[in-house]
Amino acid sequence: MLKATGLRDMVFVSVTKGIENDTLKRMSEVVAEVLGDIPIAVLSGPTIALEVVNGVPTTAVASSLDIDIAKGVQDIFLTESFRVYANSDVVGVELGGALKNIIAIAAGITDGLGFGTNAKAALLTRGLVEIARLGAAMGAKRETFYGLSGLGDLTTTCISPYSRNRWLGEEIGRGKRLKDVLKETEMVVEGVATAQSAFELSKKYRVEMPITAEVYNVLYKNKNPKQAVRDLMTRSPKTESE
Amino acid sequence: MLKATGLRDMVFVSVTKGIENDTLKRMSEVVAEVLGDIPIAVLSGPTIALEVVNGVPTTAVASSLDIDIAKGVQDIFLTESFRVYANSDVVGVELGGALKNIIAIAAGITDGLGFGTNAKAALLTRGLVEIARLGAAMGAKRETFYGLSGLGDLTTTCISPYSRNRWLGEEIGRGKRLKDVLKETEMVVEGVATAQSAFELSKKYRVEMPITAEVYNVLYKNKNPKQAVRDLMTRSPKTESE
Repeated sequence: MLKATGLRDMVFVSVTKGIENDTLKRMSEVVAEVLGDIPIAVLSGPTIALEVVNGVPTTAVASSLDIDIAKGVQDIFLTESFRVYANSDVVGVELGGALKNIIAIAAGITDGLGFGTNAKAALLTRGLVEIARLGAAMGAKRETFYGLSGLGDLTTTCISPYSRNRWLGEEIGRGKRLKDVLKETEMVVEGVATAQSAFELSKKYRVEMPITAEVYNVLYKNKNPKQAVRDLMTRSPKTESE
Repeated sequence: MLKATGLRDMVFVSVTKGIENDTLKRMSEVVAEVLGDIPIAVLSGPTIALEVVNGVPTTAVASSLDIDIAKGVQDIFLTESFRVYANSDVVGVELGGALKNIIAIAAGITDGLGFGTNAKAALLTRGLVEIARLGAAMGAKRETFYGLSGLGDLTTTCISPYSRNRWLGEEIGRGKRLKDVLKETEMVVEGVATAQSAFELSKKYRVEMPITAEVYNVLYKNKNPKQAVRDLMTRSPKTESE
């Protein structure tokens, strides 16, 4: 199925996450812009590289609009320690992988403020609700955000001490300013740019994203993180589906 | 709304989790059996007690078949540091709170085997998929399992070093037998009994629950945990919604 006899017969597998600022394009859209009409798949999920190398059991999702291409990629990467699931909801897979970094920053902020597990679990859960809400408005399936590329990846990011996004949030929660934290690392902290893109997407699609808005305010408007948490906690009472 | 002028005007708020062995009843069903025709609500979520006492931001869900009763309970418990969401899917809230303990045991087993974050994220994600699948077959809403009483509570249980269910799994993963681990504690490890109930429910409702089945096999049939993980990783390739 996946012959490499020419550019048109190849499948491009994207493993990059993010939403381009200004254009608000997903990574596979950027790839298509450059490479033109070539089948594109996305491989995403809770896959900390060091653990994959060490053969620790890991799962991921291979996604393509054409489920047969997704299954072809699934087939190529499947091993006894790397279990791949197929999924045809590319929009959901890419959005989940990108947007979860905002929630990881928020989780880091609560760590920096000295909060506990309850707060982190709340952010993770309510964060996914608003990400899925935006995704649905953009044509993705809600359930994809609760799959490996969304919830799964978010879990590793929130747990792992190595997550750059969580680390940045923690420094912000301790009272540092964004520009000072960014000076401390040469690595790209994806969630910072993604928070801006997501904030604009939430306005464009008129979707309520309270956590994303507060992360945006803290990062870009120097809002006090404690006040941001307080504002999140004292919103009007909601049902769980709101 | 919530007057206490007599037993019939009271609302019973259950904060107990589990599924009764043999009868396979949820806790509010057991309460109704004893107290008869009285309005029942359930309060559940990622609420580690010590953190709640310390005023750390915490969220929970108040659930009742009658959404007005749920909102009444929400209103009573709501504070600046304890944010309550209302939900009318009692079946989903109770099942999520009980069944997540099985996944916590599985997460502990991977810890005991020395696995990493990728494996834990996979278990959490795929565990919720199968719990939601059983729940849907039993009349619950899938989305409830991705709310605070399901995903939220599961997250704290999997992260927290204090979770008894995760601890028990870790001991099992290190090679101990269930009866020896249970001798080490006087506390009730809810997930052990729930794994048996869930295993029976999965047969009764003909729902595929591979992680629950392996936890059951490891706990009750002395299956080698490593083999259980290997069997989970080498199942036939699936799409994410399977």
